[in-house]
Amino acid sequence: MSDAQSRLDLFIDRMVSQRACLDYAIAQSHGIPGPVFELGLGNGRTYHHMVQYIENRPVYVFERAVASHPDSTPPDDRVILGDVRETLPASLDRFGATASLIHADLGGHNREKNDAFARFVSPLIEPLLAEGGLMVSSDRMYFDTLTELPLPPTAVDGRCFIYRR
Amino acid sequence: MSDAQSRLDLFIDRMVSQRACLDYAIAQSHGIPGPVFELGLGNGRTYHHMVQYIENRPVYVFERAVASHPDSTPPDDRVILGDVRETLPASLDRFGATASLIHADLGGHNREKNDAFARFVSPLIEPLLAEGGLMVSSDRMYFDTLTELPLPPTAVDGRCFIYRR
Repeated sequence: MSDAQSRLDLFIDRMVSQRACLDYAIAQSHGIPGPVFELGLGNGRTYHHMVQYIENRPVYVFERAVASHPDSTPPDDRVILGDVRETLPASLDRFGATASLIHADLGGHNREKNDAFARFVSPLIEPLLAEGGLMVSSDRMYFDTLTELPLPPTAVDGRCFIYRR
Repeated sequence: MSDAQSRLDLFIDRMVSQRACLDYAIAQSHGIPGPVFELGLGNGRTYHHMVQYIENRPVYVFERAVASHPDSTPPDDRVILGDVRETLPASLDRFGATASLIHADLGGHNREKNDAFARFVSPLIEPLLAEGGLMVSSDRMYFDTLTELPLPPTAVDGRCFIYRR
């Protein structure tokens, strides 16, 4: 038996860590009234989780093309359709620095590409957060003014990251 | 906050249960020398897990068309290509009742279709198992001569099933 983790082990670590960080960030940002932003919808499982557990805050999804599971498709007026290079700056005009929570799972298979995208998108995300607002990401982000927080105990280091403004 | 589970919660339960049942079945079938059969390759995460943790037993994958992650693509001589309606009966001629472990994640989104397929495929799987061999499935199966086993403690009831010949 090998000591190395399997791809199934890594995947479970990532999903469990993502949920732990999201649940922590949902609870921690509870008192901030601003909207929640989900960057990328994918299958919609994480969106479904956020809508299920977030009260009294609208959840907006940034996506190029909606292709989620029917149970997890946001209403049209909660979808911000287009390329994040354009929709994130446009959202700063629309919402100001009000977001209570932003979640991003950029998660392609190519680590270098993910990292390049994280560097590119970090300064577009950073100004959207309200004071005290939280950012949860599956990749390390590159923020100037946010503080990286320790992970909750059930998350695995390196599989998820939490930042606070 | 709703008491209902989110799709993310259900998905994590399913993955964690699948791994717990597989690890249990890999350990329990350790003393049986026959091959391991993986029905359906998909992304290849489970295949990767089995190859990582199974010693001294070949893992054969039954699949219509291989489209897995490059890290998890089996060698050609371990792929049994085609429709399981034909490849399972043909494997009984080739291997006899020798399989130490069979895993199936039939897992579509449609519960009724999964159940119909489980009923159809159960009698094709059943004769392939060696005496003491184990079958792990994400769906309830319909076997005449196999015994359903209790799940290991970290698995969630109803998310995975284990049977022994």
